[in-house]
Amino acid sequence: MSMAEGITVKKAENPSEWYTQVIQKAELIDYTDVSGCYVFRPRSFAIWEKLREFFDCEIKKLGVQNLYFPMFIPESFFKKEAEHVEGFAPEVAWVTHSGNTELKERLAIRPTSEAIISDSFRKWTRSWKDLPIKVNQWCNVVRWEFNNPQPFLRTREFLWQEGHTLFVTKEDADKEVMDILELYRRISEELYAMPALLGKKSEKEKFAGADYTTSVECFLPTGKAIQLATSHALGQNFAKAFEIEYTDANEEKQHPYQNSWGISTRSIGVMVIMHSDDKGLVVPPRVALNKAVIVPITTKKVNEEVIKKAKEVYRELKGFNVIFDDREGYSPGWKYNEWEMKGIPVRIEIGPKDVEKDQVVFVRRDNGEKVFVPILNVKERLKEMLEDMQGVLLDNAKSFLKENTLFPKNKEELKTAVNDGKLSLINWCGGCEESIKELGAKTLNMPFDQNPKGSCVNCGSKAKFEIYVSKSY
Amino acid sequence: MSMAEGITVKKAENPSEWYTQVIQKAELIDYTDVSGCYVFRPRSFAIWEKLREFFDCEIKKLGVQNLYFPMFIPESFFKKEAEHVEGFAPEVAWVTHSGNTELKERLAIRPTSEAIISDSFRKWTRSWKDLPIKVNQWCNVVRWEFNNPQPFLRTREFLWQEGHTLFVTKEDADKEVMDILELYRRISEELYAMPALLGKKSEKEKFAGADYTTSVECFLPTGKAIQLATSHALGQNFAKAFEIEYTDANEEKQHPYQNSWGISTRSIGVMVIMHSDDKGLVVPPRVALNKAVIVPITTKKVNEEVIKKAKEVYRELKGFNVIFDDREGYSPGWKYNEWEMKGIPVRIEIGPKDVEKDQVVFVRRDNGEKVFVPILNVKERLKEMLEDMQGVLLDNAKSFLKENTLFPKNKEELKTAVNDGKLSLINWCGGCEESIKELGAKTLNMPFDQNPKGSCVNCGSKAKFEIYVSKSY
Repeated sequence: MSMAEGITVKKAENPSEWYTQVIQKAELIDYTDVSGCYVFRPRSFAIWEKLREFFDCEIKKLGVQNLYFPMFIPESFFKKEAEHVEGFAPEVAWVTHSGNTELKERLAIRPTSEAIISDSFRKWTRSWKDLPIKVNQWCNVVRWEFNNPQPFLRTREFLWQEGHTLFVTKEDADKEVMDILELYRRISEELYAMPALLGKKSEKEKFAGADYTTSVECFLPTGKAIQLATSHALGQNFAKAFEIEYTDANEEKQHPYQNSWGISTRSIGVMVIMHSDDKGLVVPPRVALNKAVIVPITTKKVNEEVIKKAKEVYRELKGFNVIFDDREGYSPGWKYNEWEMKGIPVRIEIGPKDVEKDQVVFVRRDNGEKVFVPILNVKERLKEMLEDMQGVLLDNAKSFLKENTLFPKNKEELKTAVNDGKLSLINWCGGCEESIKELGAKTLNMPFDQNPKGSCVNCGSKAKFEIYVSKSY
Repeated sequence: MSMAEGITVKKAENPSEWYTQVIQKAELIDYTDVSGCYVFRPRSFAIWEKLREFFDCEIKKLGVQNLYFPMFIPESFFKKEAEHVEGFAPEVAWVTHSGNTELKERLAIRPTSEAIISDSFRKWTRSWKDLPIKVNQWCNVVRWEFNNPQPFLRTREFLWQEGHTLFVTKEDADKEVMDILELYRRISEELYAMPALLGKKSEKEKFAGADYTTSVECFLPTGKAIQLATSHALGQNFAKAFEIEYTDANEEKQHPYQNSWGISTRSIGVMVIMHSDDKGLVVPPRVALNKAVIVPITTKKVNEEVIKKAKEVYRELKGFNVIFDDREGYSPGWKYNEWEMKGIPVRIEIGPKDVEKDQVVFVRRDNGEKVFVPILNVKERLKEMLEDMQGVLLDNAKSFLKENTLFPKNKEELKTAVNDGKLSLINWCGGCEESIKELGAKTLNMPFDQNPKGSCVNCGSKAKFEIYVSKSY
């Protein structure tokens, strides 16, 4: 483990530099020589593994099966669905050569897999008895779009899961869109402790080729929102373009209804920004790799009693993947700073006086709370503290969201809200997104519980929807 | 589920066409429009998931951490280790464009990740206290090498895990090479029920850039061998090329010793060829997605008593991921054929007479064994049958290997052995691999227990090694 200095800027003052320092000093990310491509180091990949474990288990309960499709998509496939190609073509990475040989047809690296999967769906779908088909893959995708890539948030290669499903009826497809969105909400709130804004994207912001897109959006302490996950109803668009047909019970040809849905490693960056502070990373306990670190306090010469007792505690806490930090040559204070920076949820200190009293000290990462815990109770009390911390992080984020949500009544108020880094819920006409962009903001999504009134806050024509608007990553 | 006819050729008569039919009709593979790239369908991906679960758990016990590196490797990185680039350059897929823009430096899609990982290792390695470093990734790789791609066995994109580790001492690195090889042996023998030939590759066949390569090889009923997994000692070759250095306890700069090791989706194809038969797929129970299928026999009109009893059995066998096949419009015989083709280890039949006797019939996929089982005992007896089948598959494969291993004493005998599709263990000089290739064979590996005698069977000069030789995929 190498020496590391603390975070040198404040989150509130320079959020961009603060983020860059946190993700590197907490060893989440390493930069590479390819701009926009980053190493997901073990401390961040472990978070991804927790998400995967949860989501994979839940979708298998819904009857979804994992599989794997090639990442190369022939250019001709890619062009079949018109909106889809228009949406993705500018950001596609193309393979043109193998060794020294030029390929006959250049190959797109998947920015998403609807095109290649629809081609297989065509072969797998004969009768209504073959439906529903529900598959998912965990894989890498490439979108070479960005001028300003940012680790996790906007990367040229990222990891995600993409689910792809086919149904006989629109009702079943619509229901699944919402079932999956609910799982994404649970990831957001139950795993990442982040309040989820659920809703439907505007026509302009929906997935290229979809009938409609639903999303989970998160509003962050930096005053900007970001899309966390999306669940799309593709309708029959790809089915028609790729000739996916089945014979129904009356022996008639039909196109099935198709969905797709995904969440990516972007979510890790969103979580970092939501909870972390000027000392470094804060990770909700449920997704933390190591739940606690034990630091035996053995100033001057090693105190064998302390080490012995600390090891007992370590063994007792086996299920929590605890770090035991008995490194020599580092002061306890230096160690505290390091583990705070790396976001270990609970620090457990034990010194000579604690040994005498058969106790340890728990220090909580998020609020610095310090409690003395009898060694007999460490397991149960650690469990409690982790659960409490998980709950408090979500509660705090909810309070922040509530305090920072405004309901501007006219364009002037909207402009002020945007400039102040607030989230706005506005009455909206359904158009005029360009002029919202000119304010430096973006439409996020339209909450499912709609109650539009009066005229569009932005342009003044009749309001048809309520929609969230804010600055955005 | 669509109608499917049986396998129309025999394994012994036309192994290549037989293989193509089995992997498609058992729904393991789908072809795509990109030659050499295949869809790993849920029935094969589930096998990969079982392997991953086992191996991931075991390497974590050894202190290995998962992470993820970008798949794009700048051309300049790739060229740093001379042997490495020479070995891999001809089969690299190159990305040259994003959207309509030509990239400044073209990017290799990883054929393996030593180059990009070594660049990060350089940054992570400062002091001897940072070592060992042990990381692993589960990912896709691309090798655009082959004229004759074959699903699973030789594909242009495949899935694998690649482990990459750094040690202070050569002894620790050497030990890990063997620890990992032992895990690969366990995958081969304990999961896939395939006897593993363990040994060291020849100088010519070792990994490009390695000091030495160890491997697991499998000899198949088709009379050809194939490499299942490799564990490489890279020595200090990459460390020197990428300037990976640490300061030792005496404050002196040192290069660490590096390993890498991998097993891929190829292994699924090897397993298919090892065990499957003229009826279709045979899967060792430990890696089978569904351990059994229940077929209620309800000729003419539906017999409700039978369905009710069958469902009881189904509930009792919950932990075995059993298929319940009560589809109408298909005869029991048709269903038996289908599930045999798809390799479900045990078929459970239940008809009106069985209901009277409170029993079911178990039919084992590998040997057709048929037993009557009291319904009270289905769980325990299914467990037994699966374990027995797992053991018998390995025993049979071991017998086959033993019967087909020859010890030719001269070139004429070696030639005959190769032509007859036998595995040969020969005394060997350490060179003359070209003339072995001319026989239509390849060196596989040199068993660790070496006892070379006399002269090289192939060229007559002094024998230095014993090595396995056979036809190869």
